[in-house]
Amino acid sequence: MRLAVIGGLAAGPAAAAEAKRRDPAAEVVLFEASAFVSVGACETRLVAAGVLDDLPSIPAETLASTRGLDVRTRHRVDALDVRTGTLTVEAMDHGSRYTDRFDRFILATGARARRLGIAGEDAHGVFALRSKEDAHALRDWLDTEPVRHVVVAGAGPVGVELAEAVRLRGLRATILAPEGRALAGLLHADLGAPLASALRAAGVALRAERAIEILTNAAGRVRAVRTDRGELIGCQAVIVAVGIEPRTELARAAGIRLGATGGLAADDQMRTSARTVWACGDGAEVRRVVDGASVLWPVAPVARQTGRVAARNAVRRGGPPATFAGVTGAAAVVAFGLELAAVGLSERDAAFAGLDAVAVQVAGRSRSSVTPGGHPLWVRLLAERGSGRLLGGQVMGAEGAAWRANVLVPLLRARATARDLAEDTDLLYTPPVGPAVDPLRVAAARLAAAAR
Amino acid sequence: MRLAVIGGLAAGPAAAAEAKRRDPAAEVVLFEASAFVSVGACETRLVAAGVLDDLPSIPAETLASTRGLDVRTRHRVDALDVRTGTLTVEAMDHGSRYTDRFDRFILATGARARRLGIAGEDAHGVFALRSKEDAHALRDWLDTEPVRHVVVAGAGPVGVELAEAVRLRGLRATILAPEGRALAGLLHADLGAPLASALRAAGVALRAERAIEILTNAAGRVRAVRTDRGELIGCQAVIVAVGIEPRTELARAAGIRLGATGGLAADDQMRTSARTVWACGDGAEVRRVVDGASVLWPVAPVARQTGRVAARNAVRRGGPPATFAGVTGAAAVVAFGLELAAVGLSERDAAFAGLDAVAVQVAGRSRSSVTPGGHPLWVRLLAERGSGRLLGGQVMGAEGAAWRANVLVPLLRARATARDLAEDTDLLYTPPVGPAVDPLRVAAARLAAAAR
Repeated sequence: MRLAVIGGLAAGPAAAAEAKRRDPAAEVVLFEASAFVSVGACETRLVAAGVLDDLPSIPAETLASTRGLDVRTRHRVDALDVRTGTLTVEAMDHGSRYTDRFDRFILATGARARRLGIAGEDAHGVFALRSKEDAHALRDWLDTEPVRHVVVAGAGPVGVELAEAVRLRGLRATILAPEGRALAGLLHADLGAPLASALRAAGVALRAERAIEILTNAAGRVRAVRTDRGELIGCQAVIVAVGIEPRTELARAAGIRLGATGGLAADDQMRTSARTVWACGDGAEVRRVVDGASVLWPVAPVARQTGRVAARNAVRRGGPPATFAGVTGAAAVVAFGLELAAVGLSERDAAFAGLDAVAVQVAGRSRSSVTPGGHPLWVRLLAERGSGRLLGGQVMGAEGAAWRANVLVPLLRARATARDLAEDTDLLYTPPVGPAVDPLRVAAARLAAAAR
Repeated sequence: MRLAVIGGLAAGPAAAAEAKRRDPAAEVVLFEASAFVSVGACETRLVAAGVLDDLPSIPAETLASTRGLDVRTRHRVDALDVRTGTLTVEAMDHGSRYTDRFDRFILATGARARRLGIAGEDAHGVFALRSKEDAHALRDWLDTEPVRHVVVAGAGPVGVELAEAVRLRGLRATILAPEGRALAGLLHADLGAPLASALRAAGVALRAERAIEILTNAAGRVRAVRTDRGELIGCQAVIVAVGIEPRTELARAAGIRLGATGGLAADDQMRTSARTVWACGDGAEVRRVVDGASVLWPVAPVARQTGRVAARNAVRRGGPPATFAGVTGAAAVVAFGLELAAVGLSERDAAFAGLDAVAVQVAGRSRSSVTPGGHPLWVRLLAERGSGRLLGGQVMGAEGAAWRANVLVPLLRARATARDLAEDTDLLYTPPVGPAVDPLRVAAARLAAAAR
C-alpha cells in the first residue's frame, strides 16, 4: 500500500501520521511545496507583532522519523492521474521532475490568501499572510524598513489580528472595511459598537472604503493606497487580508469534483468524486450540522480531524468507514482586549438555509454584578421559530466570552432548544465566573419566549 | 387558590414569583423567618473580606410590589398540618402566633450550616456563615476586634473562600483540613498540588487536624482552638465551615418523607410525599443525571429552577406537569488565583454508583504554548469502562478552567462519550483561548483509548 498525502501544513501531517498509525505497513509519502511542515499559521499575528521570531513548525526530519513517514518538502505535485495512480512531482531544489505511482491519495492542498486584484498589489511592501515565508517577509519589512503607517485591507479575523500586531509595534494602523465595520462576517451589526470603541481606543482608524490601487515609488515600494472614495492614504506597508480561497488546481485538472463553495467536494468519509482520492483540510468542504450546508471551515482542529478521517478510510481494509461528524461552525477572534466568538448560524446563514430564525441579544456581565473585576458581556442567540431549536450564538466580552460560546457547541450538535439552555443546562455557578443567572441563560430564556 | 411558600432565600422567591406569573389570580404568601429575602449568600466572601459592605438582597416591599406577592419577613412557620392545610406562624416582631389555611404549599426551607459539636462553639468570635446576619456578624467582628489570626475549621469551598477573605484583610489564616488537603470533596488528590502551592504562596497554613475544643477567655471570647493532635492554636476568630445540612424539622413534623441524604424527598415534579406539598432549594433532593442518584445540590441556579418547577406544578390546572431535568453536579471555587471546577461524578461517586470508571489526567495550558499570558491547566476526566461514556471531569487553572468545565455539562447530559469530545466536538480555536488541541480534548482522546 503506497499512500500519497499532498500538502504539509496541518491536515496533511495529521492524515499522514494517522495513516501510518493505522497501517504501519503502508508506505506514506507526504509532499509539501514549501520548506516547512506542521506550521502553526495561527500565530502569524505574534510574528508580525515581533513577539515571536518565527511561526512554530515541526522539522521535516522529526516528523519523518517520529511518525515513520517519507516527508518530501520543496516537492511540488504538479499533476495527479487518478486512472493510473500517477503523480508528477517537481523536486524544486533539484530542478527536476519525476513521476511516481501510488494506490491512494489524500489531498490536503489547503487554501491561499485571496488577492485584491488591483494595480500595485505586487509591489514591495504588500503582504498577504498565509505561510511561514509570508510571516517572515512581513516581519523583516517591519523590522528593517522605515514604516510608520500600515494599511490593512480587510476587516475579518486576520485583518483585525494584524492591525493589533501593527499597533503593538507602535505603528499607525488603518483598516479598510468596505462593510463599514470589523468582523462583519462573524458578528451581527448590533454587536458592533464595543468592537468599534475598542478599535478607536487603540488608535486604529477604520474606514468604510475599499482599496482600488496601490501606488509605489520609483523603487517599486508601496507609498500609498487609493480607495473607492478617492482618498489617497499614505503608507509604507499594506496587508491584504480579504479571506482565502481553496487551492484546487491539482484536483480540477485531475477531474475531481468541486462543490458550490469552490472547495473540494467530499462525503462524510472525506472521499472525493475519485474512488482513490480523499480530501481534508482548509480546501475540503464539510457539512455544517446545524443546517446541513456544505461549507469551508478553515481552522486547524477541523483540518486535523478531517485529515484523520481521510487517512482512516484511505488505509481501511475492512470494518465500518470512519466518518467526519461535521462542524458546528465555531470561530473566535481575540484582539484589542475583547474575545469575539460565534458558533453556528448567523441570521444571514439562517435566511440562506430557509430557516425562520428569531434572535435576541442581551448585555450582562462576565461575573456577578458585585464581584470585582467583572466586564460587560454581550450574548446574541438565534433559534428557529416554533421549535425553539438553537441555531447559533455570538458572545463578546473582555473575558469569558469564547468559552461561553464553546458551551453552545455540544448544545447545537445535540439540537438543543433555547429552553434546554435556559432551564435544563445546569452550568456551574460561582460569582467570579458568572452571575447566578448567566447572560447565556438570560438570553436563552428570552429567546425561548420570543421563538414560541 | 392560596399558596404558601415557606423560605425566602433563593428558591422561595423564585417559586413565589413563578406561581404568581403562572396564576395571577392565586394568592401567594411568602414566609421568611429572617428580615431578608432573595439574599445573594454566595457573596459572603466579599463581605468577610471587607470588599462589600453587605450581601445583596431585594427589599421585601420591592419583591412584594413587583411580583404581586404577600411577603412576610420575620414570620417563622412553626407547624404545617397537611391534612387540614393549616400553617402555624410566629410573627416574630409582634411576639404573636396565628394559624392560616392554604390550598398548597412549597417548602423552600433550605439548609443550615453544620456545627462542629465541640465545646466552646458558642463563644464570641465563632462564626458559621449562611445568612446575611452571619455575614454581618463576621464582618463586624473583623472590623472592630483586635483580630490577628483566624482559624477556619473546614477546607471545602466556603472554608477556602473565607480563608482567602481573611488573607485579603491582611490577617493570618489557618485552615484545619482533617483530610489533609483543601477541596478534597471537589478535586481528586492528584490535582491537589497546585492548590496546596497556591495556599502556601498566599501564606495560608493548612493543617491536617480537626478542632476538638474552642477555648475562651474570661469574657467568653475565643482565644484558641485545640486540635485532635493536641495542638493549641491561638486565634481571635474561628470560622466553622464544615458543610450544611437541610432544615427538615417542619417537614418531618408534618409527616413528609425524607430521602437517604436527609433532605426532602421529591419526585421530578418536585412533589413531596404529601399531595399538596412541593419542595425546592437547598433542602430538596434532586436527581443527578449521570448516575440517577438522589443528591442535595445546594447552588443558587438549581434552587431557583427547582423553585420554578415546584411553582408551576403547585398552581397547575391542566396540561402536562413541569419536570426538573436533574443536575449534572457542577461546582466551582475561584480562590487564590485558581479556578477549580468539577462536573459530574468523582471517582468516589462512580464507585458508589457501581460504575467501572477509568480516569485520565493531563497537564496543558490555557492558551497555545507560544501565546503570551497563558497558564498551566489541568484536566481530569472520567469515563465508564467499555462504553466510554463520560462520567465527570475536573478542570483547574488560573484562567479558562471553570468555563471549560461548563462545556462538560451539556456533554454529560447528552450521555456523550470520551470519543465524542475528543473527535466530534469542534470547539472553537484561536490561540489566545486554547491550544489547537485543547487540554480538554487531549484528555478525552487519552480517556477514549484508556476506557476501551
